[in-house]
Amino acid sequence: MANKTANKVANSVSNEMAKSGPNIDKDILLRLGATIAARKGGDAAGSYVAGLLARGEDAILRKVLEEAAETLLASKEGDKLHVIRETADLWFHTLVLLAWHGVGPEDVLAELQRRQGVSGVVEKASRK
Amino acid sequence: MANKTANKVANSVSNEMAKSGPNIDKDILLRLGATIAARKGGDAAGSYVAGLLARGEDAILRKVLEEAAETLLASKEGDKLHVIRETADLWFHTLVLLAWHGVGPEDVLAELQRRQGVSGVVEKASRK
Amino acid sequence: MANKTANKVANSVSNEMAKSGPNIDKDILLRLGATIAARKGGDAAGSYVAGLLARGEDAILRKVLEEAAETLLASKEGDKLHVIRETADLWFHTLVLLAWHGVGPEDVLAELQRRQGVSGVVEKASRK
Amino acid sequence: MANKTANKVANSVSNEMAKSGPNIDKDILLRLGATIAARKGGDAAGSYVAGLLARGEDAILRKVLEEAAETLLASKEGDKLHVIRETADLWFHTLVLLAWHGVGPEDVLAELQRRQGVSGVVEKASRK
Repeated sequence: MANKTANKVANSVSNEMAKSGPNIDKDILLRLGATIAARKGGDAAGSYVAGLLARGEDAILRKVLEEAAETLLASKEGDKLHVIRETADLWFHTLVLLAWHGVGPEDVLAELQRRQGVSGVVEKASRK
Repeated sequence: MANKTANKVANSVSNEMAKSGPNIDKDILLRLGATIAARKGGDAAGSYVAGLLARGEDAILRKVLEEAAETLLASKEGDKLHVIRETADLWFHTLVLLAWHGVGPEDVLAELQRRQGVSGVVEKASRK
Repeated sequence: MANKTANKVANSVSNEMAKSGPNIDKDILLRLGATIAARKGGDAAGSYVAGLLARGEDAILRKVLEEAAETLLASKEGDKLHVIRETADLWFHTLVLLAWHGVGPEDVLAELQRRQGVSGVVEKASRK
Repeated sequence: MANKTANKVANSVSNEMAKSGPNIDKDILLRLGATIAARKGGDAAGSYVAGLLARGEDAILRKVLEEAAETLLASKEGDKLHVIRETADLWFHTLVLLAWHGVGPEDVLAELQRRQGVSGVVEKASRK
């Protein structure tokens, strides 16, 4: 019952978001991922991403962990806007890491989708 | 010129992704965000997310940093599939953090979009 | 001049500590390091340290990063006693990491000593 | 029995270290802690530590987490000397954090000593 209500709320929120379509570009992560992947082997001097990819795995990992720490500090600060900006930085640098490994955001989204499917099935089964 | 080529590649990759539409649900992050937000104040015993939200900010932050560390270790291991799974875990727990703050993935996507716009403008200007 | 005062204060604090000798065992880190090293290859079921060493490098690294995060959260909480306990946990797990690599606290202390020597020389030179 | 052997080994290693006394300054952590504490409120331009303390808690916490990440990367690299240097950096920055909170290494050492005492008692009891 609680789940049904939760799903109803979730759907209504989701629909509301869908309606506000022009403002949110749902392809932004995929496009960012593709742009970053295209920077591989590019001019390190002319692009932050090309430079970071050229510096290699450890440099990227340092940034991922640094942005995770910044997200944590922004959260403790209690500034929502700061949390959003640091989460954007964190996601961005995980996109660079994915590109370094020759994979992309579409793989992560597919993984999240797969899990939700599994979890949805599990929840339905447990509700009977 | 290099940028033009990069953009062309990016667009072509992006189009290819768009074509493979049925497989990737572009709303997955927004739907996940809404589902997580709907778990707030829900039955902590019946849902991992409701339980984590009930345990509070520090518990969520511990998970965010833990998943960042797991992503790092998976990367050093060199297993692409493991990197994808740990990045999915990391993104998922940042969604829980966003929900705790009453914001959501749409805010992070908007921030990323805003930046790309700015960066695009800057790049165009520098190409003249 | 400021440095001289600083050194005077430092020495006086240090002397005060030296006086309170019976309470602080200055060998504690060396003894802990030796005890941990002796656990290598020991019965994993009977000792936390032997178990952690048996689980290997990544398990130890997870703990090091986890305790660093706990130290950070304790600090933001503003509870001095909690900061001390989490720092103790962090140092302890770095001792386990050192043992895993076949080195020990004496190597870290020697490195710190070497640096202070260098820095002392640099400071003296700059005071002329 | 295994514990007895472990303790014997530990003691012998510890004694060996004690013998090599002139090289290792057992007060180095206490002296470093006192030196750092004396930098509080000092000239931020003239000293790295005074500058870091002046920048405040979050700046120090960023460094603690950064050095934990560096320790992790050095470990995965498999370079013992690098692990030692990064652990020294990590300990050093936790000393700065302790000083920021008005406590010091003596408190952490006392906590470690207290635990070993407790753990020793527990181990003895469980051996009966």
